[in-house]
Amino acid sequence: MDFASTEMMIVMEESAGPEEVERILERLESAGARGHVSTGDVVTVIGVIGERDVIAGLPLEAYPGVDKVLPILKPYKLVSREFRHSDTVITVGGTSLGGGHVALIAGPCSVESREQLLTAAQLVKEGGATMLRGGAFKPRTSPYAFQGLGVEGLEILAEARELTGLPVVTELMDPRHLEDVAKFSDIIQIGARNMQNFQLLSAVGEVRRPVLLKRGLAATIDELLMAAEYIVKEGNDQVILCERGIRTFETATRNTLDVSAIPIIKQRSHLPVVVDPSHAAGKVDLVEPLSLAAVAAGADGLMIEMHPTPETALSDGAQSLDPGQFARVTARISDIVSWAGKTLG
Amino acid sequence: MDFASTEMMIVMEESAGPEEVERILERLESAGARGHVSTGDVVTVIGVIGERDVIAGLPLEAYPGVDKVLPILKPYKLVSREFRHSDTVITVGGTSLGGGHVALIAGPCSVESREQLLTAAQLVKEGGATMLRGGAFKPRTSPYAFQGLGVEGLEILAEARELTGLPVVTELMDPRHLEDVAKFSDIIQIGARNMQNFQLLSAVGEVRRPVLLKRGLAATIDELLMAAEYIVKEGNDQVILCERGIRTFETATRNTLDVSAIPIIKQRSHLPVVVDPSHAAGKVDLVEPLSLAAVAAGADGLMIEMHPTPETALSDGAQSLDPGQFARVTARISDIVSWAGKTLG
Amino acid sequence: MDFASTEMMIVMEESAGPEEVERILERLESAGARGHVSTGDVVTVIGVIGERDVIAGLPLEAYPGVDKVLPILKPYKLVSREFRHSDTVITVGGTSLGGGHVALIAGPCSVESREQLLTAAQLVKEGGATMLRGGAFKPRTSPYAFQGLGVEGLEILAEARELTGLPVVTELMDPRHLEDVAKFSDIIQIGARNMQNFQLLSAVGEVRRPVLLKRGLAATIDELLMAAEYIVKEGNDQVILCERGIRTFETATRNTLDVSAIPIIKQRSHLPVVVDPSHAAGKVDLVEPLSLAAVAAGADGLMIEMHPTPETALSDGAQSLDPGQFARVTARISDIVSWAGKTLG
Amino acid sequence: MDFASTEMMIVMEESAGPEEVERILERLESAGARGHVSTGDVVTVIGVIGERDVIAGLPLEAYPGVDKVLPILKPYKLVSREFRHSDTVITVGGTSLGGGHVALIAGPCSVESREQLLTAAQLVKEGGATMLRGGAFKPRTSPYAFQGLGVEGLEILAEARELTGLPVVTELMDPRHLEDVAKFSDIIQIGARNMQNFQLLSAVGEVRRPVLLKRGLAATIDELLMAAEYIVKEGNDQVILCERGIRTFETATRNTLDVSAIPIIKQRSHLPVVVDPSHAAGKVDLVEPLSLAAVAAGADGLMIEMHPTPETALSDGAQSLDPGQFARVTARISDIVSWAGKTLG
Repeated sequence: MDFASTEMMIVMEESAGPEEVERILERLESAGARGHVSTGDVVTVIGVIGERDVIAGLPLEAYPGVDKVLPILKPYKLVSREFRHSDTVITVGGTSLGGGHVALIAGPCSVESREQLLTAAQLVKEGGATMLRGGAFKPRTSPYAFQGLGVEGLEILAEARELTGLPVVTELMDPRHLEDVAKFSDIIQIGARNMQNFQLLSAVGEVRRPVLLKRGLAATIDELLMAAEYIVKEGNDQVILCERGIRTFETATRNTLDVSAIPIIKQRSHLPVVVDPSHAAGKVDLVEPLSLAAVAAGADGLMIEMHPTPETALSDGAQSLDPGQFARVTARISDIVSWAGKTLG
Repeated sequence: MDFASTEMMIVMEESAGPEEVERILERLESAGARGHVSTGDVVTVIGVIGERDVIAGLPLEAYPGVDKVLPILKPYKLVSREFRHSDTVITVGGTSLGGGHVALIAGPCSVESREQLLTAAQLVKEGGATMLRGGAFKPRTSPYAFQGLGVEGLEILAEARELTGLPVVTELMDPRHLEDVAKFSDIIQIGARNMQNFQLLSAVGEVRRPVLLKRGLAATIDELLMAAEYIVKEGNDQVILCERGIRTFETATRNTLDVSAIPIIKQRSHLPVVVDPSHAAGKVDLVEPLSLAAVAAGADGLMIEMHPTPETALSDGAQSLDPGQFARVTARISDIVSWAGKTLG
Repeated sequence: MDFASTEMMIVMEESAGPEEVERILERLESAGARGHVSTGDVVTVIGVIGERDVIAGLPLEAYPGVDKVLPILKPYKLVSREFRHSDTVITVGGTSLGGGHVALIAGPCSVESREQLLTAAQLVKEGGATMLRGGAFKPRTSPYAFQGLGVEGLEILAEARELTGLPVVTELMDPRHLEDVAKFSDIIQIGARNMQNFQLLSAVGEVRRPVLLKRGLAATIDELLMAAEYIVKEGNDQVILCERGIRTFETATRNTLDVSAIPIIKQRSHLPVVVDPSHAAGKVDLVEPLSLAAVAAGADGLMIEMHPTPETALSDGAQSLDPGQFARVTARISDIVSWAGKTLG
Repeated sequence: MDFASTEMMIVMEESAGPEEVERILERLESAGARGHVSTGDVVTVIGVIGERDVIAGLPLEAYPGVDKVLPILKPYKLVSREFRHSDTVITVGGTSLGGGHVALIAGPCSVESREQLLTAAQLVKEGGATMLRGGAFKPRTSPYAFQGLGVEGLEILAEARELTGLPVVTELMDPRHLEDVAKFSDIIQIGARNMQNFQLLSAVGEVRRPVLLKRGLAATIDELLMAAEYIVKEGNDQVILCERGIRTFETATRNTLDVSAIPIIKQRSHLPVVVDPSHAAGKVDLVEPLSLAAVAAGADGLMIEMHPTPETALSDGAQSLDPGQFARVTARISDIVSWAGKTLG
């Protein structure tokens, strides 16, 4: 007997009869899968064995007499630790992320002007950042808020890269902008609100650029990994996962940083994990403690908002460090990275 | 003194001094807004007066000495009940939704084949549905699951419309498919996962087709209204909001139907609200009680999954009614719609 | 082979070897249970068969090589629908709750004075209430808020019962007050914050008085049923479950009423379910739509706050109906109860 | 003009008229408070000034014309950082917690037998623990699970204290056991499920023993501080707060550790904060990364479950370290405590 590649267990209702079990077995067989029945006094359990893709498509919960369907194997494959045992390391522009290299990705929330971005780029470079972040296309809850400079912002980012040598991370919101974003940036960011924008995921799966995929506000860790699977399945295995806080009942922070996600993702996947303490907290004061916690828990990178003058920022000012704060926080981060036996970049 | 169009109150920290208050006042003035200071023994509060669009862009929480910023006015305008007092009524293909008309939108989760969809369309028509639903482009958590028939599915839907006279509701996932979806359908659905896909919202704001906007799994009611504002702002005021369950800690249901959202949306907005009990519950057994609860709470419509043979469904079989169940449920719905003094369609 | 009373399935890690499986089997045997092994290419699954009480005590997840433990049977027994197929009906003072009888439990949040409570009792009686509610011991988030009149409040409640003939529902917070509360009331309420105060649950399990058990803010439906099991296990099977909203990210309501809990509890348990729309919503405006939704979804009762003058209430004024509102709401409730084919009380 | 001790701002509805504002002002005055009105074109805002205790008791949201009530000042007093600027340090049995001293509280979930507990106590002492934990009264979700040894367990804990010199932390569940628990232990624990058992909080406020108060599964940080206020208000200011994970939609961990709570509590309160990574995670593998993250974020202590033989544990085996794991984890903890410039105990 062989439960081998069992994808799931079907638990029947107490009232289910043999004909209901039979119907399921027939359906499994006709789909090229197999069911192994264990009948008892109280309930009957059917172990299902077969190809992942086939079984995923069967509406087993819809069958009469079925109480519940329990998955046994993980729903993802290519991103799993079982598929690749060694850590994926992302290297761009001479700096690395993963496998002992901790990236410090910093910059303003939005590209607001050439001057602002170039100043910010210089400042984060001096403060020890290993990559530059900045948004040219901005997802904003309100249609009345600043929506980003678009392609002009991308060009400014590319200029900052020239100037500082820092690789650029920037967000893609629409598949129609993919070509531009891929042209001007080094790492393509998919924002939290688009984590399950499957068209966008498939689109970035087809380019040869690393992707930084942010966890959705209400996405489980397994759903984040499934979203990454969408990208890797298309041929792009350079994916960085980003924990940036989840939505809970607590209102003291903008989101609740799920620090446990770091070790759990590392157990389940070979992909590197970075943490965005700025968006998780929504407050400048929390950036340092959350950054230190993230590195202590094993994060492969941090993504921190820094603005030359947060008080004039067009977005996310409340969570952006000013240059002085940034220098102090990065000193502490550098310190704990050494403590952890890793290196920055 | 005039707190008139005060957008917000700024509460200073206890330790904040006069120079910190002064800095904020200067910033407000330079932006064409005004601050009204109330100094006390414990804290100072600044009431901010000015244009919505201007104030929304100021990073007031980023200023030194600021404890918190409390909004006073709602962040949306065009969708608000204050902007339009009378209920918006959507009329397509001779049937209405809103203002005493309860729509019954039914059909399978996905268009799987011509035969399946035409059969389903006939069955829901006979069962009393006023509109037909069916997905040609399907957002699926797993890249290995059925992703829909695409344009071919749209053509089948259009054929079903010819056959039954029922207007068609179908999902748009990618702005690149807008032209096709608008051509073949009567109401464009934006799914829960795309509720904050702002590019998509703006895109459907530019066409003259009603939009059915589903609430995101972790979206607050105000965020749903902000997403609708994105659409209306572009000129399309034919928006239907859809409550389909939110994500909570409870695992007995796929999502938690937020029935309170119905009366709250109606207080805050003039837009109609429909409820999708199939996705909220994830279980056939719950479709009837949740449908009745939704109508009792004031919903303007229901969106229910029905499949000719749920056991063969390529998606959402577990929550799809079969034809017999559908007939029984719609009889009860019809009954409570009458009780509520409204009419179906 | 017999999976009969299988309590759970143990899914081993991919890397687990035969000696790890062996260790688990030995532990099961030494506890009088049995394990049934299904070995496959990817993972091994062990079906565990044995007495509920024994298996619940085994730390199976702690064993090396165990990936996860999946429960098969429900963790409760006496409160389950399988244990008793017919609905439990609670009858006190000539009025019933459950089995077609919908109770309307109304009154002020707190007993504030003899005059206030007697006035309220008369008003709710006239408005059609079938039971009177009022708190003598009040759980308050702030130690600076009104904490209730204590035993004096209980005596006033008893007087109101004399006057109106309405059975009295009041909260017990401390096992040391059990004797007094049982003496002066007809139904003992356990509040949401005490749903897992197991000492209190056991204490009320030992008296012969119906218990109204409120769902905790973050309790799953199964945890609510387990809490009820604590009471029934001690010999008191007169338990009423109360859905009063759960805590979610949504801030538009005080809590999110989980209307799906009504049909789910009725599937899983024979105990009656009432809904408290006042606490769920936290707002007067929502009491009517949520009450109607609850009855439409199958609730056996409603628990509504009414205060003669909400503006002077010492607690929960914002969610208490005034007498005029109460009369209007109860007329609608009475109407939908008839529609549902049930009777009030 | 003086907004001084303004407790709150009342925002009126747009439709509210002068008579509705007047009614509120009269009510405030009759309660000895004061209202300061700011009238505008859109809405009127009333700033309320007065005594905390008085204002907290007014049902301002119940007044006609009131849209919402926004609190300005914190709802707690004695536990606030403003009330006492310096960190509270708890010292028992020669070891400290807070103010640079990091406590390592370790031991089994439950006291199961004299032998088990004495062995565990020796092992945690050797491993570097500064305090011993162990439950004699156990809150269990299932009435069929092991409920603890009761007073016998307390006596065994006292013996372990004699043997090792480690102060003992143990849970109190029922005010009727207070005398016994206070007699045999050094720190009284209030469990997460009892965080809002206000009778219990008041009871431990009256003894002279430090209290370790765990955050409820669905409690906000401010509610945790309010619960602590209940204790301190009775005269006992030796309170330790414990973050142990909150309930969210994520199922990969038993609870979601809210690491941000550490710095936020330290900003808002002078009380020390410890973290329980064992209950937060529910898994042995996560104890180390979460412990390190907690210390990096500023925690004053850790509470870790260690069992001599987790596989035989009567409760929480899956999250209990074995002696070897405990030694490895404590070595890392000791290391990061030094890195943070603090000392163990």
